[in-house]
Formats: sequence, structure tokens, C-alpha cells
Amino acid sequence: MPEPRYDVIAIGNAIVDVMAPCEDARIAELGLAKGGMTLVDTARAEELYAAMGSAREISGGSAANTLAGLSALGAKCAFIGQVADDQLGEVFAHDIRAVGIDFETPVRADDPPTARCLIFVTPDAQRTMNTFLGASQFLPPETLDAEAVAAAKILYLEGYLWDPEEPRAAMRRAIEAARAAGRKVAFTLSEVFVIDRHGDDFRALIEDGLIDILFANHHELEALTGTNDFEAGIAALDGKVPTLVVTRSAEGAVAVHGGERAEVPAEPIDKVVDTTGAGDLFAAGFLYGYVRDEPLETCLRRGAIAACEIISHYGARPEADLRKVMDAKLG
Amino acid sequence: MPEPRYDVIAIGNAIVDVMAPCEDARIAELGLAKGGMTLVDTARAEELYAAMGSAREISGGSAANTLAGLSALGAKCAFIGQVADDQLGEVFAHDIRAVGIDFETPVRADDPPTARCLIFVTPDAQRTMNTFLGASQFLPPETLDAEAVAAAKILYLEGYLWDPEEPRAAMRRAIEAARAAGRKVAFTLSEVFVIDRHGDDFRALIEDGLIDILFANHHELEALTGTNDFEAGIAALDGKVPTLVVTRSAEGAVAVHGGERAEVPAEPIDKVVDTTGAGDLFAAGFLYGYVRDEPLETCLRRGAIAACEIISHYGARPEADLRKVMDAKLG
Repeated sequence: MPEPRYDVIAIGNAIVDVMAPCEDARIAELGLAKGGMTLVDTARAEELYAAMGSAREISGGSAANTLAGLSALGAKCAFIGQVADDQLGEVFAHDIRAVGIDFETPVRADDPPTARCLIFVTPDAQRTMNTFLGASQFLPPETLDAEAVAAAKILYLEGYLWDPEEPRAAMRRAIEAARAAGRKVAFTLSEVFVIDRHGDDFRALIEDGLIDILFANHHELEALTGTNDFEAGIAALDGKVPTLVVTRSAEGAVAVHGGERAEVPAEPIDKVVDTTGAGDLFAAGFLYGYVRDEPLETCLRRGAIAACEIISHYGARPEADLRKVMDAKLG
Repeated sequence: MPEPRYDVIAIGNAIVDVMAPCEDARIAELGLAKGGMTLVDTARAEELYAAMGSAREISGGSAANTLAGLSALGAKCAFIGQVADDQLGEVFAHDIRAVGIDFETPVRADDPPTARCLIFVTPDAQRTMNTFLGASQFLPPETLDAEAVAAAKILYLEGYLWDPEEPRAAMRRAIEAARAAGRKVAFTLSEVFVIDRHGDDFRALIEDGLIDILFANHHELEALTGTNDFEAGIAALDGKVPTLVVTRSAEGAVAVHGGERAEVPAEPIDKVVDTTGAGDLFAAGFLYGYVRDEPLETCLRRGAIAACEIISHYGARPEADLRKVMDAKLG
């Protein structure tokens, strides 16, 4: 096996977030599922955009956010995801390349347009996401760059993208390529609705030993394992997933790795502005420690610190110099 | 004359700001004129965008920012400006309508794309702007909605837009329509380079008594009047401009109106993040007081408070509830 060129390669939605503050009453009026992620079609996307306040556009996408965090910390990363030939596609491609991430997936010439996520941020900093998948749902498996996947220490996959057919097939192919090259596969469950629809697939991947690192929040752990007892949920995956990382919002996070267990509290923060990307950046911090073979607790601490930076401002891409912030906090 | 439908109607660039932090050294490497506004062509815009860090997109445009401030304060406004039929055009139109501003200028079907301004924000919060005018430079005078202009108490014009030929002709027509309807004309000089190129036009407008309210910063006052003595500059316009408002960054602002003179210091602020839009929001605050016939000093105070809000965050559109902020500060 040649020396890996990348620390992490990820497959995910190539999406631009359209974000605006919103009062709680408006969330109810618009019939939105507060705190969740809902897929929307063109008509609903237009309706919600028309109802949205003056917004700002910031590149997003769960796995892409994770890579942006990893890259800011100094990891070498590559991204695979589908944009259309339009201005938001240019914005996404610019922003991901601007932070040093390789992004070579060819632009898709046809309709639909580049994916966008309409995010309503309530005064409690909770984000309510409405995703128009657009071009993101087309990622032809036959164009997957298997050589690039084989050249990364870790293949990171976003559960959100398991839903549309083409990207799911591309991700299955990527798992094969990573496995054949002796690389690790990391998977984030993304959202309960994805588990409701594809839980059997995920459980099969786990049973088949294809997932080395699994990221979940406590709701997703519950949906995946079918128990609402947190410890029972963790126990259910014991021996099946070599590294399990479960986040619990303000209650911190737990990781289990080869019989060892570590826990960290959430990082203290003055003011939470927007929770968009908290899980994505937690994964970034954790994986940065993981690829450097750091102690499990240090990996978790890095996750908590990265998540803390991202929720201190609007948008799911780091604003502060994440490396400096982390060095200062880890001492 | 029928009762005016609008407090202020403005003609300005319909532009989306693309903003990223930038170190001072990079400003020099890229050959940028720090603190200024430079017009760029397609090739230079692409070169600068490629050199820019991960960015965020926020609607901008000088006069449009002023209207966004006015609208947030409760004034009834309309905007005239040209976008193309593309995603950034949709973003601009959405954002201006989302704050309650009427915007009916038909979308332009052909190339070039919607205007964008690449803004590099240095650690001292100074903004260095590089404007690709795109569709904004085409605003056919024959399509000007003269009826809407006649229906506003104040016509507000942006000096930046005096440079391209079509908008200049449209603005001349608008001035006629406003004058014929007995309305006031307000003009902001925008930038020294515009005065270098069109100072004779501006001086002629002033001599002809066509400008009722003139906004300038101290550099622009100097360029317009040809004296670097601040008081001499103000004296040079005495009796020619009924209301003169001159901002001096951190040193506050001065207004002269019918023999009366008022001054205010800059509003105290903890941390200046990004000075983009400071002058635009100063004008918003001032005009809000002006249309309500408030004392000159109150108008200036409103300007200073609005400018203070805008420089406390990224982007030139208000984030806080400007009305609440202002009520709290004015007591």
C-alpha cells in the first residue's frame, strides 16, 4: 500500500446554507419541524424562501463542514460531492477549495440547481433545516474516484446522502475501495429520519464489520439500536463498531474504542448563537485526534472544542483560527 | 400632489457582497487599494475570488443598504436597481423584499451576471472592496418608474452608479421626475474616484440647486470642494446645498442645515468587526430623522447609532433589531 495522500476523504452533500434568524411563532406558522432536517421540493423551497427574512449564504453540507474543520486543524482532505453549473455551485466549490480541500468532482451540467438548505435560526440558537437536494442527489457511482478513496486513511460518509439512490451506490462502491485498500470507514448517522428509512442498511453495514468509526447523537443511537436507554444503546453496539462516538448536545459526549471508554463535558461557552454544524465539527475535532493516534479523551476534547467554536457564530464553517483556539484550550 | 407613498426611493447598485477575512500582507500581495472601492472586470474578479478565503454572501449595494436600514427603522421604501436572471439576482431581490422594500425593476435576461463585490476584511475591520458591476451597469432610463419616484418624499441617489452611462441617464431622469413632483433629492458621493471622474457633473447639479441633501465623508468633501481644510470645505457648499452631512469615521459627523450646524461624536463601540456599510447606515439613520422633521442633532445621532450597529458585525445589512437598538439609545 502506498503512503496515504489524504487523512480523510469524504462523500457528502454539496450544499449552500441560506440562513436567517426567525421567531419561534413563525416556525409554527410555517409548519416546520423545529430542530430537524426536512427534505423539500422546489415548490416548498420557494414558499419557505419567500417567507424567510433577509438571509446570508454560507457553504455547508454535513461532511463538507467536517472536512473544513479538519483542514483548518491541519489535516489533508478531499471531498466528493455534486454541484450544478451555477453560481451557488461556484460558491460551494470556491469555499471548500479556499480552505485547502481537494475537490475534483466534475460539475453537473443539467438541472436541477446546486443544493441549498434553508435554515431558520430561532432565538434559542436552534437551527431548523429545510434541504432542497438539487444536484446533490446525483452522484454517479461510475465516476467515483476510487483511487482517491484508496489514498485516504479514512473514508468519511454522511448518512444524509444515503437517502438518494445514486450517492448511496457511490458510497457502497467507496466502502469497497476503502476496504480493499485497508483503510478505515467512518460513518455519521446524520438524522433520525434517515435511520427510520435506512436503518436496516446501516445495521447490516455494522454487522458486516464495514464501519470502523460510527458517529451518532443520542437520538440517532436510540433509533439505530431500538432502545431509549443510553447505556443499553451503547452496549448494543459493543464489539460491532471498533470506535463509537455519541454526542449529547449540552451534556457532552462519550466514546468507546476497543474496550476503553472516555467521556467529556460540553465545552463552556458564553453565548450559543447558532447550533448549525455542531455535530459536524465535533466529528472534525475527533477525527483530527484519531488520525494522529491521540488518546480517546483527547479526541473527544478536540471534538468538543471544535463544536464550541462553530456554535458561537452563524454558519457551519469555522470562523476563528481553529488550530489556535484548540492549542490554547488544550494547553 | 397626492400624499407620498414612500418615504424614500433609491436608485443604486443591486449587488451581493462576497466577504472574507484577510491579513494585511495579502492585501499588498494582491495589489489591492486598502480601504477603497475598485471596479474590476471579469478576469480580475475571478483572480481575486480564487485568492480569497472561504466567504459568505450577504446582499449589499450602498443605497440598498441605506434602504434596508430605513426599512428596519419603519420607513416605507422602494428600490430601483438592475439584477440579472441568476441565483445572485434572486438572492438580492429576496433580501431586499424580505425587509419590506418594494423592488419592481424587471430582471435583465442577458449577460453579464448580477453584480458582486469581493470584500476583503482586514483585522483592523477595514474593508477593501472590488466591485464587478455586471448587470448593475445597465439600467435603461426609458424603463424608469417616474411615477414611483414622484410618489416618494425623497429620491436617494448613489454616486457609485453615476459612473456607468445608462444608470446615470436614469438618475438624471429621476431627478427631473422628483423635482417636477416637488420632492427632495438626496445624493451620496460614495467614493473619491467617482468625484475624480464626475466631479464636474456633481458640482453642476449642486450649482443648479438640484441636490437638497448631500452626504459625503471628509475625503469626498475634500475632493469635491478642492480644499483639504475641513471647515473651508463645508463653507464652500454654504448656501448651495440645503442640507449637508459629512461623516468623519471615528471622529463623528457634522451636519449643516439652513444656517444651523450640529455635530455628534461616533457612537461608542466595544469591537469594530467590519466597517462595510458604515456610511450607508449613517445615511439611513439621518434620513429616518429627516423625514420625520426631527432636530438636526437627533438626525445625526440616529446616523451614528445605525452606523455603530453595522460595524459590529460582518455585512452591510442590519442584524440587530435596529429600531429597538435606537429607541434604547435615544431614550
